Amino acid sequence: MPEFLRLLPPQEALERLLAQLDLQPQPEWVDTIHALGRVTAASVLAPHALPSFARSTVDGFAVHAADTYGASENLPAYLKLVGEVPMGAAPDFTVKKAYCALIHTGGMLPEGANAVVMLEHTQLVQTNEVEILRAAAVGENVLQVGEDVIAGQEVIPNGIFLRPAEIGGLAALGITQVRVARKPRVAILSTGDEILPIDVPMGPGKVHDVNTHTLSALVQRAGGEPVACGILPDQAEALALSAAQALKACDVMVITAGSSASTRDLTAQVIDGLGKPGVLVHGVNVRPGKPTILAVCALPGQPAKAVIGLPGNPVSAFVIAGLFVLPVIKALLGASPASFKPTVKARLALNLPSEAGREDWVPIRLIAGASGWQAEPVFGKSNLIFTLARADGLVRIPQNATGLNIGEIVEVFLLE
Amino acid sequence: MPEFLRLLPPQEALERLLAQLDLQPQPEWVDTIHALGRVTAASVLAPHALPSFARSTVDGFAVHAADTYGASENLPAYLKLVGEVPMGAAPDFTVKKAYCALIHTGGMLPEGANAVVMLEHTQLVQTNEVEILRAAAVGENVLQVGEDVIAGQEVIPNGIFLRPAEIGGLAALGITQVRVARKPRVAILSTGDEILPIDVPMGPGKVHDVNTHTLSALVQRAGGEPVACGILPDQAEALALSAAQALKACDVMVITAGSSASTRDLTAQVIDGLGKPGVLVHGVNVRPGKPTILAVCALPGQPAKAVIGLPGNPVSAFVIAGLFVLPVIKALLGASPASFKPTVKARLALNLPSEAGREDWVPIRLIAGASGWQAEPVFGKSNLIFTLARADGLVRIPQNATGLNIGEIVEVFLLE
Repeated sequence: MPEFLRLLPPQEALERLLAQLDLQPQPEWVDTIHALGRVTAASVLAPHALPSFARSTVDGFAVHAADTYGASENLPAYLKLVGEVPMGAAPDFTVKKAYCALIHTGGMLPEGANAVVMLEHTQLVQTNEVEILRAAAVGENVLQVGEDVIAGQEVIPNGIFLRPAEIGGLAALGITQVRVARKPRVAILSTGDEILPIDVPMGPGKVHDVNTHTLSALVQRAGGEPVACGILPDQAEALALSAAQALKACDVMVITAGSSASTRDLTAQVIDGLGKPGVLVHGVNVRPGKPTILAVCALPGQPAKAVIGLPGNPVSAFVIAGLFVLPVIKALLGASPASFKPTVKARLALNLPSEAGREDWVPIRLIAGASGWQAEPVFGKSNLIFTLARADGLVRIPQNATGLNIGEIVEVFLLE
Repeated sequence: MPEFLRLLPPQEALERLLAQLDLQPQPEWVDTIHALGRVTAASVLAPHALPSFARSTVDGFAVHAADTYGASENLPAYLKLVGEVPMGAAPDFTVKKAYCALIHTGGMLPEGANAVVMLEHTQLVQTNEVEILRAAAVGENVLQVGEDVIAGQEVIPNGIFLRPAEIGGLAALGITQVRVARKPRVAILSTGDEILPIDVPMGPGKVHDVNTHTLSALVQRAGGEPVACGILPDQAEALALSAAQALKACDVMVITAGSSASTRDLTAQVIDGLGKPGVLVHGVNVRPGKPTILAVCALPGQPAKAVIGLPGNPVSAFVIAGLFVLPVIKALLGASPASFKPTVKARLALNLPSEAGREDWVPIRLIAGASGWQAEPVFGKSNLIFTLARADGLVRIPQNATGLNIGEIVEVFLLE
């Protein structure tokens, strides 16, 4: 049986993982001014209407609309001036019939008035008399109570990433704290006898720890809290002990395995020993990243948690983190599935061959061309980290395709 | 003369502003592990090659390629086993002619060897003899020194926002600190007698301060450091004093004016009094946001700094911040002009009329349709903050268009 028939496609593998997890986000309160990028853990209801009083949208005179009917440049209506609406306070007068009041943009419509005539369609004829040169309809130039939101209305749904626009909406309603999902803590372990911390000088046969740092950055951008747990040797007992400790203190664990078959098997064995149900998927039908391990493990007295074994090659680890780690974080945040991803449409600059039966992800550099963007594949083995640093995004070659053709319009998923 | 002929289009207005500023970013060192999202203030050169030694990309046997020529399943080559390459260290042997060494993925190629035969194309016949079942070319399954980057190569250009991929690249090179642009400090002042801090209960005629919070969030996302300077009354002297203090302590200042013509004029007058050259643009040809003020002011003994007066309406302030405040922050960071913006292509669900001669920005909600995304305009006056909270992005109607037609494919700029 060909390998691609035995390996799960990534989407199916992810579903198998998510199905075994308790995806109830843990709520906590956070100050609105620090809530940017957090995910709501409850829908937000408006405590009062917005605006909470009828406001003028222009500078002008607050009037009874009926007093202006028929008014024109040739036949103005004449109204007595009762006063000026102060900004930021309720007027201490009412506008009776045949009267008007000076009002500024944002000012509170005085009692009695039901429309505002713009300043440019009026003329002050005496200190206390105003010529109205154009008729106003009822409600004209007035923002009514509740025109933005009504009291009790759901203004922000549950499971939404808070953007500057929502922060502004919360501010408008005087909501100083908001219920959000606690950031999932993501333990990140690197394994391999050859891996050095980045602050230790390079030695023969050694390589610096790349994955801890790219993964921490990716987790942070996705709304999780990375917990770097250091570098572990390729030794089963030490690895099992450290992995259990890390998993206990976190909500998700990511282990980047060494690249050799023996260390990958070691990682799978250690993960499987952490708790039931254990390893669910070992190997996915995607390149780069085939030797991915997806597991759910419950330590004694603890809930079942996702454990993801990533290939050690930096490009594979990056692609696989995007396919599995980030979706798990979003699920734990209770975030509504991202309905759209920002992409850039570009014309493929080269043929991209691919084996049918396997999903491929290829790093892409975007080059400005005369007729839009050109997608230029950045070729490089998946152990070359600068393949990614040179890329703007990734292109997906679907499982059933045998490649993409030069000149084809592709969707480039921008690197986060 | 029609107004749109007197007002500058936004792009031209921005250029006029940037032309008067000293755009030299201030560099500082930051730890690589905290550098995500920062902008490089110098190009990064590789201190050494990557990989720094020849590495195997597979599990197998390190050989002299010539010893394998002609080898096949039927006619294997026989090589003596000299030892096993340890992970993370230099092998303490060399591979002589007719010898081979066991090597794991990522292991250091021993001296003498110039290729690796994959494990699956070999067979151990005795404890110290290996059958080679397939020939290997020179360099096969080997990652050569410098194949990713060579020593001294520019690996990250100046003026780049650092993403997870670049953080990984810095880690790979053992670079623990990176030279980045200091975050521009952006003073944010709200003005208006009617504006309340968000933690003060609503009163008649009052509205909560929305703009300080949306602008702080936008500045943060753009890579700046927001400095909220509070709410100021519509009073020239107090405003001038506070504005001068805020500008002195920051690199850019944003003042959201009250909405009435008189407070807007007050703001312009206060800004103009802060220093030369003063107000450069008063009014831009865009909706919402026409009453925008762009100024450059040098306080005594200080460099000239950008001062931007935004309309008080939250939607206008948001759109105008995107057109002027964020580009100024990026310019001060020395960030290479964003070559592409993530957008979503969608089919317009309604006709969008617009006056020719003015650029319009319309909030859009994206709705999944059978044939892709539908762009549904979110109508609402620009003083309704929840117009934005309901929107996924904005669509631009260019200055020379008289609107966009239903069914047209539009580019939706996602809200940050």
